[in-house]
Amino acid sequence: MKFRIDIRRKDGLADPEGMTTHKALHNLGYTEVTAAHFGRTIYLEIEGTDAAAAAAEVETMCRQLLANPVIEDFEIGVVG
Amino acid sequence: MKFRIDIRRKDGLADPEGMTTHKALHNLGYTEVTAAHFGRTIYLEIEGTDAAAAAAEVETMCRQLLANPVIEDFEIGVVG
Repeated sequence: MKFRIDIRRKDGLADPEGMTTHKALHNLGYTEVTAAHFGRTIYLEIEGTDAAAAAAEVETMCRQLLANPVIEDFEIGVVG
Repeated sequence: MKFRIDIRRKDGLADPEGMTTHKALHNLGYTEVTAAHFGRTIYLEIEGTDAAAAAAEVETMCRQLLANPVIEDFEIGVVG
């Protein structure tokens, strides 16, 4: 099974990469861009057939290692 | 309009973050994970009403600044 985890900072927290990108786009003339935010995505392939158990395990992995739940939100999706 | 850009390394290229994550998950006991890959996501908010023109412009931004088309694939989606 393939899972996709989207991790991004919680709303309201500083996003320096996003701000820098926003400025760079403005400097290149893309002044219609009003905001830019960064996130990261992790794609996991997992052996097994029990999708619900695997999804629960992916959530545990996120809390334990992959994301920082204090400052980040994450969303888990199945891609195949 | 809100766009979401998914950027990941082309298949076959080394993905050190993914390999490190894979190893770390194994060390934590998640041995059923067979692969881990990293990508990044950029969320852009753009003023305007012409969705097709904005999407074309986002693609230009990707080629010019946001992604490295030599080693990365990107995918643009509208999120709102």
